[in-house]
Amino acid sequence: MRPQEIIARKRDGHALKDAEIAEFVVGLTTGTWADYQITALVMAMILRGLNLREQNSITREMLHSGIVMDLSDIDAPKADKHSTGGVGDKTSLLIAPLAAACGIAVPMVSGRGLGHTGGTLDKLESIPGYNVNLSFKRLKQVMKACGFGLIGQTKQIAPADKRLYALRDATATVPYIPLIVASIMSKKLAEGLDALILDVKTGSGAFIRKPTESIKLAKALCETGRSFGVTTQALVTDMSQPLGKFVGNALEVYECIKILRGDAEPEMLPTLELSVELTAKMLLMCGIATNKADAKDKILSVLRSGEALDRFRRNVELQGGDPRVCDKPDRLLEKKLFTLDIRAASKGYLTAVDTFAVGNAVCMLGGGRVRAEDTVDHTVGFASLKKVGENVAKGDAVGTVYARKADDATAISEMIRSAYKISTEIPKAVKFIRAAV
Amino acid sequence: MRPQEIIARKRDGHALKDAEIAEFVVGLTTGTWADYQITALVMAMILRGLNLREQNSITREMLHSGIVMDLSDIDAPKADKHSTGGVGDKTSLLIAPLAAACGIAVPMVSGRGLGHTGGTLDKLESIPGYNVNLSFKRLKQVMKACGFGLIGQTKQIAPADKRLYALRDATATVPYIPLIVASIMSKKLAEGLDALILDVKTGSGAFIRKPTESIKLAKALCETGRSFGVTTQALVTDMSQPLGKFVGNALEVYECIKILRGDAEPEMLPTLELSVELTAKMLLMCGIATNKADAKDKILSVLRSGEALDRFRRNVELQGGDPRVCDKPDRLLEKKLFTLDIRAASKGYLTAVDTFAVGNAVCMLGGGRVRAEDTVDHTVGFASLKKVGENVAKGDAVGTVYARKADDATAISEMIRSAYKISTEIPKAVKFIRAAV
Repeated sequence: MRPQEIIARKRDGHALKDAEIAEFVVGLTTGTWADYQITALVMAMILRGLNLREQNSITREMLHSGIVMDLSDIDAPKADKHSTGGVGDKTSLLIAPLAAACGIAVPMVSGRGLGHTGGTLDKLESIPGYNVNLSFKRLKQVMKACGFGLIGQTKQIAPADKRLYALRDATATVPYIPLIVASIMSKKLAEGLDALILDVKTGSGAFIRKPTESIKLAKALCETGRSFGVTTQALVTDMSQPLGKFVGNALEVYECIKILRGDAEPEMLPTLELSVELTAKMLLMCGIATNKADAKDKILSVLRSGEALDRFRRNVELQGGDPRVCDKPDRLLEKKLFTLDIRAASKGYLTAVDTFAVGNAVCMLGGGRVRAEDTVDHTVGFASLKKVGENVAKGDAVGTVYARKADDATAISEMIRSAYKISTEIPKAVKFIRAAV
Repeated sequence: MRPQEIIARKRDGHALKDAEIAEFVVGLTTGTWADYQITALVMAMILRGLNLREQNSITREMLHSGIVMDLSDIDAPKADKHSTGGVGDKTSLLIAPLAAACGIAVPMVSGRGLGHTGGTLDKLESIPGYNVNLSFKRLKQVMKACGFGLIGQTKQIAPADKRLYALRDATATVPYIPLIVASIMSKKLAEGLDALILDVKTGSGAFIRKPTESIKLAKALCETGRSFGVTTQALVTDMSQPLGKFVGNALEVYECIKILRGDAEPEMLPTLELSVELTAKMLLMCGIATNKADAKDKILSVLRSGEALDRFRRNVELQGGDPRVCDKPDRLLEKKLFTLDIRAASKGYLTAVDTFAVGNAVCMLGGGRVRAEDTVDHTVGFASLKKVGENVAKGDAVGTVYARKADDATAISEMIRSAYKISTEIPKAVKFIRAAV
């Protein structure tokens, strides 16, 4: 079948047959479909719709455009967490060692930051020497030695998705649930997992902001995961303010190591709380805990005993990083930065944070990427000192900007200041976990 | 505005502003929009729809992506005919000299054949030496000398449409009326016309087969033409069988010269009839005739007097062709062809012709193009000897195939035979002109 005929079928509102979707994904992978044919079909998919069978079919074909990891020689349940992306969302760095210390093997394939969101790979690379480009063989060695490995998407993992995502990004065809599901799940299913926990973000810092839409996405992700025989659950969690204290690559690793060391500052506690919730789900799905309380006990026990920190230290060493950051997290912090506090202009309650704007502000400091090919400054960032619902006095610092240049600190602090809304009315309390799917 | 933002607006069902359409067409012309962005927007336009303002705006911007001819120094009304394409549709070769002989200046920019349809340029090039690649300056000289010129779409005429059409052809996004209108009218309006007659084909050999859709297209074309201040009318005409006698480049020119010489064979009369109808509309729109009868009188008068043939001969000479074909049209015919009659397998009425199949059969003989870059054999073709509604005896020849090789003649005659339906029931008479808009 020529590409035109398949495009015409979707243009006219038909459900595509599995064989037609297979031809499309082969064309994506091998290059026999032109970019302009791919984007025409994708737009037709969005406007005519894809049913669950089509969503699963695209996922399956994209998954099989690359390799599926064979982890059968690792004698532990395999599980992973995936987040849809947020601001200050650093839980991967805690969940991987916590889950590993509880007996789960975690083959975590992560991404880089783009736009207002950070990426786990960029955060890890703020540890001197840390290497995210491991071969599959080396990843398995690392996993066997410390329980988890953290790598980037290689060319072997879902190459069809790589090409498709780049084209969708350039053609306003990203925000459509069945295609988001196929993109995420084709990569996650390549990890050869037994269980997967999804952290679907909602609110002003999430890609999908409306809770109802986020819940839809969570359900769609779970449906597809389960169709492929992977135990899949999702939490829909609040991203209406930065998570925890810091936003920015080295600053976020610093926050995680502080938590692993038992030195969490009060602003860092939400990071710990969410990490424990997500890890608990993994333990339950893997049959390592019998109920939620038991799961949390096990997690807090490996945290308190230092076992999780030890796993992290061994991982850093195995992936080529400097393990001394685990003992002295201050080593991660650049001393020569310009810091500037953002002070409340009036007294009242902190009612809302435009988290998208905060993420973009850190990106503009150099801490993120506008385009995929940009380089990242690991040291800059932002500390979120007041949380939504808190009472602030005039002049209180609601946050601190960490910049390379004094001018940047001034300009970016203005952006962030206007992202913070202070009012005399007491805001409605927002639940941290909005839904469990 | 980034391309993504404009695409997103149409994806979400908004009417695009004129400024957004202008950005898109500038992007098309200059290359700042990528192919894959163009096709994503085009698919969104088709599935979300374009209103008349948007249709006119795309037409205007594509028109102004190139030059608009300035024919103000030619002291005659300027008019042209455009056909949406059919099989054996050779009326341009008659209308241009007939209209010119009646006092109209005809700057006819034509196309090449593709798929089942022929193209005026290919037909003309079957005249030895005939050159369709004239500069605008030379076109004007030719028009001043003989009243009409026949050229191909140069790079200066609506270059945005050229790129857009090629992308639409590869992405199943051709059949959408507002984009068809913009494509046709951006080129026709570049001719600087006072009046335009459109021949919108309907039936089995037309791009749009349903009469109701053809009438919609005719109305949409007229609305846009009139919006630009050009007197525009359309006839919706039957293409449920090949027009006139011949299909094939040299054979069609032969048919036209026979008609111009007053030697029309009975099977050729529909070609003359339709040409007269269309030319009459041009005369009326240009104020050269007071009513239809007057217009037809004037046209038949320049045909009978030999003035139209003389105009054609002068044009052939001015455009570098061998004018002797006008005196001896047999010179156009290749003597070494294999001819094979297609004979009726039973007696009855000819009830229908799959005209698309006939056009494709001639294309497969080498007389047309599968891809735009293919070369054309000008000599091969088909003669249509029986018309729908005629009574045929078993063994009567319904048509004749003209092929280069005996094998081709046999294979293609089989294809054409199955395109002819003979039944004992008397078919309903089909009106030749279905509607006037």
